[in-house]
Amino acid sequence: MGLTIYLSGEIHTDWRERVIEGAQGLDVTFSAPVTDHAASDDCGVAILGAEPDKFWHDRKGAQINAIRTRKLIAEADVVVVRFGDKYRQWNAAFDAGVAAALGKSLIVLQPPEHDHALKEIDAAALAVARSPEEVASVLRYVLTGALPAGA
Amino acid sequence: MGLTIYLSGEIHTDWRERVIEGAQGLDVTFSAPVTDHAASDDCGVAILGAEPDKFWHDRKGAQINAIRTRKLIAEADVVVVRFGDKYRQWNAAFDAGVAAALGKSLIVLQPPEHDHALKEIDAAALAVARSPEEVASVLRYVLTGALPAGA
Amino acid sequence: MGLTIYLSGEIHTDWRERVIEGAQGLDVTFSAPVTDHAASDDCGVAILGAEPDKFWHDRKGAQINAIRTRKLIAEADVVVVRFGDKYRQWNAAFDAGVAAALGKSLIVLQPPEHDHALKEIDAAALAVARSPEEVASVLRYVLTGALPAGA
Amino acid sequence: MGLTIYLSGEIHTDWRERVIEGAQGLDVTFSAPVTDHAASDDCGVAILGAEPDKFWHDRKGAQINAIRTRKLIAEADVVVVRFGDKYRQWNAAFDAGVAAALGKSLIVLQPPEHDHALKEIDAAALAVARSPEEVASVLRYVLTGALPAGA
Amino acid sequence: MGLTIYLSGEIHTDWRERVIEGAQGLDVTFSAPVTDHAASDDCGVAILGAEPDKFWHDRKGAQINAIRTRKLIAEADVVVVRFGDKYRQWNAAFDAGVAAALGKSLIVLQPPEHDHALKEIDAAALAVARSPEEVASVLRYVLTGALPAGA
Amino acid sequence: MGLTIYLSGEIHTDWRERVIEGAQGLDVTFSAPVTDHAASDDCGVAILGAEPDKFWHDRKGAQINAIRTRKLIAEADVVVVRFGDKYRQWNAAFDAGVAAALGKSLIVLQPPEHDHALKEIDAAALAVARSPEEVASVLRYVLTGALPAGA
Amino acid sequence: MGLTIYLSGEIHTDWRERVIEGAQGLDVTFSAPVTDHAASDDCGVAILGAEPDKFWHDRKGAQINAIRTRKLIAEADVVVVRFGDKYRQWNAAFDAGVAAALGKSLIVLQPPEHDHALKEIDAAALAVARSPEEVASVLRYVLTGALPAGA
Amino acid sequence: MGLTIYLSGEIHTDWRERVIEGAQGLDVTFSAPVTDHAASDDCGVAILGAEPDKFWHDRKGAQINAIRTRKLIAEADVVVVRFGDKYRQWNAAFDAGVAAALGKSLIVLQPPEHDHALKEIDAAALAVARSPEEVASVLRYVLTGALPAGA
Repeated sequence: MGLTIYLSGEIHTDWRERVIEGAQGLDVTFSAPVTDHAASDDCGVAILGAEPDKFWHDRKGAQINAIRTRKLIAEADVVVVRFGDKYRQWNAAFDAGVAAALGKSLIVLQPPEHDHALKEIDAAALAVARSPEEVASVLRYVLTGALPAGA
Repeated sequence: MGLTIYLSGEIHTDWRERVIEGAQGLDVTFSAPVTDHAASDDCGVAILGAEPDKFWHDRKGAQINAIRTRKLIAEADVVVVRFGDKYRQWNAAFDAGVAAALGKSLIVLQPPEHDHALKEIDAAALAVARSPEEVASVLRYVLTGALPAGA
Repeated sequence: MGLTIYLSGEIHTDWRERVIEGAQGLDVTFSAPVTDHAASDDCGVAILGAEPDKFWHDRKGAQINAIRTRKLIAEADVVVVRFGDKYRQWNAAFDAGVAAALGKSLIVLQPPEHDHALKEIDAAALAVARSPEEVASVLRYVLTGALPAGA
Repeated sequence: MGLTIYLSGEIHTDWRERVIEGAQGLDVTFSAPVTDHAASDDCGVAILGAEPDKFWHDRKGAQINAIRTRKLIAEADVVVVRFGDKYRQWNAAFDAGVAAALGKSLIVLQPPEHDHALKEIDAAALAVARSPEEVASVLRYVLTGALPAGA
Repeated sequence: MGLTIYLSGEIHTDWRERVIEGAQGLDVTFSAPVTDHAASDDCGVAILGAEPDKFWHDRKGAQINAIRTRKLIAEADVVVVRFGDKYRQWNAAFDAGVAAALGKSLIVLQPPEHDHALKEIDAAALAVARSPEEVASVLRYVLTGALPAGA
Repeated sequence: MGLTIYLSGEIHTDWRERVIEGAQGLDVTFSAPVTDHAASDDCGVAILGAEPDKFWHDRKGAQINAIRTRKLIAEADVVVVRFGDKYRQWNAAFDAGVAAALGKSLIVLQPPEHDHALKEIDAAALAVARSPEEVASVLRYVLTGALPAGA
Repeated sequence: MGLTIYLSGEIHTDWRERVIEGAQGLDVTFSAPVTDHAASDDCGVAILGAEPDKFWHDRKGAQINAIRTRKLIAEADVVVVRFGDKYRQWNAAFDAGVAAALGKSLIVLQPPEHDHALKEIDAAALAVARSPEEVASVLRYVLTGALPAGA
Repeated sequence: MGLTIYLSGEIHTDWRERVIEGAQGLDVTFSAPVTDHAASDDCGVAILGAEPDKFWHDRKGAQINAIRTRKLIAEADVVVVRFGDKYRQWNAAFDAGVAAALGKSLIVLQPPEHDHALKEIDAAALAVARSPEEVASVLRYVLTGALPAGA
């Protein structure tokens, strides 16, 4: 048994690295969106030509990014969605909705202060974690049955 | 030809009423979440018993609300998602993700200042409208082929 | 908005009548398996011919009952599964699994003493109710947004 | 041709080992839930934090276990569900319902005294076996066409 | 609860009339292929132009008939397939395969002398009936819970 | 039995009217895209605001038209696609691809000179008709079993 | 590009060997039902215990064979169904129906004298071949683009 | 992460080679229809026997080609559809429709002079490219996050 896990959401902290670090030794394949913010924003116009209107500039980029995102969510067993402190992160919530509608196992990683605002998304999740290490522990248990030392 | 339309998102302004008003005379059926904020927050504990922990208080309510939301999104032809100025509105973005994954026609209603933050969701939509009246005009055209007077 | 609700499980108490009573005035359609225990057990051989072996006697009946059950679960928006005090009720748990896999909204109705034994099924449900009246209140809220008086 | 087989149900006897032993040499991949009873019960709180209320303690654990179960049933060709003598085993019946709704080939392993109580589940199965060795023989025949020696 | 029932197979006896007669008073909708043998064979060339080659003559007709068959099987709850004494009836067996793959409830109506030849199809059915009256009794029980008088 | 039929393709001749005329008296519901060419081209900018770039002008309109097209193809039993003598008609071929992938019954209406260019689409169709009257005759036969007078 | 091909139908001639021989060197994986007639008929009772009634003897066997058949058809890209001169071969026609409903590419292998009786099945197929060598040539062309020498 | 890409449409220029060249070093698998025009046109009669009527000659070939096309589109993550200057290319537009309905990521490769005629197909695409090199750059970015040098 192996798991394919898509790590969605916040791109400004090291949470992905910490999940991956915590999952060392497990039969897991991690994937993620392009996390280079500038490239992600400008890919559309950089490849397909400039747009004077920012709205279409964004559209071209968002659609190219969707080629990646669709594929990775579709082939994931588990989608982890991270909500951090900055930005509106509507695309993270959108990914959570896609994942839920496709029947993926959803894990939400978020601090307690967002509990109320995230209650609908949490209600669609199979786990709400507070740290990347908790996410890794969930994956370890799911794959091996092992609980964290000291638990 | 008729359309069933789910109106998701912001519950603190009269945008739903304005869409419905603008769509008068059309063969449309509108639906929405429970928009009584207090009832929506407390339905779980009010019906199934109190919870000392706010997290589970919210969970119980969000799951009961999901019975309604799932049904209405599943039977909608069009899902309109409104992003306003207040709150984080993650559940609106989540609904948009569910709608996209289910192949529903998605219309986003949002002010220009959120364009960049909503680019991924807009990229999954078939129309991005700036006012409830525009949403109504889209519905009118889709159903009848008529364009707004003066257009 | 209307709801179609399949009432699965225990057939020896009046819980179905109490749910239906509590839901009076709502836009709901209730359905249920054949609740005449003897007819349900013997329908196969009564219609298609006797079987000397009880195993095949049961098989013939269970398959005819499945024509009804499949249809009703497939067309339900909500499946309520009642676990009572008597019998093993494996078919109720089986119906819950079918409902969950088909993406139906699941409500479990069960006394607290079965909480631990039912934890996997409860975890797939959107509500765990303790009385038929609570089930009716959930349906009323989902359809109308109204909470129980005094709540 | 190979088969992926999920072994669901009873965790207190050696039936899984006996099926696996009997299937030696075949192109089969077996999977199972976490069968360490204590870990399975407590994984939620051990990883995601304690809960004072046993109901939510169980919920947290059952949802994490569902990440594993969903994945394994979804990728299985055959789901074997074992009903033993102890406990209510509602989760086994629930797994059978999920498997049936997903169109998996279902094999039920159960003693004759439960025939009547399991008639609905048996009616959804492609084989009802009385011993783990019979299950292994079914798998061997399905994969190789070979019948048991002496048959 | 109502049932939509597609009556497939043999077109040279009055079995359809007898099923319909036996189901009088029930909330049922029956459908069937075009049972005028000559029209069914020649519809393609009669409408879309003659073909000198019998193979394409047949193809044109069979594809037009498929417009009807696909629609009726897709919207049926129950598919009854009748195997009689004459002809090879491969299209009846084909309809049974389509119905099984679509998850329709399948009832086979056939005399005992075909039991062995039809064993794979019977194994996919929820009932094997010997007379049109038995089919009607199954429908009556499924819809009302009533068993035949004298049973 | 009734049929819902989507009439796709050419908008410059009276073929739709002739199909509808020929189908008088049948239990049919016809639908079509917006056939006002100017409105169809300009709906996007007329409702949602002007675009200086023709590419995005077209995009806005095409996406609004897609709200209608998706809905109508999704709910159709039969999709008739007409290829005429003028324009490239790639959207007609696109509709045919959508219809085929969704398992709709496809009827192609086209003159013989396009046979070779349309061979892949014809191969996915259940009928290739040469006149609107032939299409109507197919519908009449499918619904009633009646062949054209004189056939 | 590789193809997985299920070879269904007649088990009394060497047609499977001839298809496989003709496809040498191609990236193909062939599969088939258990073709040992006696084992196929008796597998149910040989493994799961004798049945005095031939009907249930057959049922037990047919259901075990269905575990294999379902899996192989589900994972096939192409289903070849052979109709020969002997027996009624209803299970071959049933497999063709299952394959068609699942959207598999269907190839029928049959002599011209059955053309009329098989017209509905042929109409659902992408090729009707007269010899195993033709089937192999179709597979070779589909995979490599090469036509038979001399063609 | 790897991508499987189906290259549909025009077969008379070297655009496929240029996309493949531009994608060197990426984890991609390309596929295409049979691009030998004569073989593609005549495969049906070359393998399954001559047809005097060109319509059926074409039909036989188109259906065999569909075995390949269906398989390759079904297993693709991305479908690139090229519209060139010659021929009507209705099969390219048909493939685009199939791809869209199956939820594949669609990239259209076409010169600006076809923008208006292709607006419905472009509106279903995630990228509209003007050169094979742009297609390759999209694939490179999607897989690696790298933008073209100088961008």
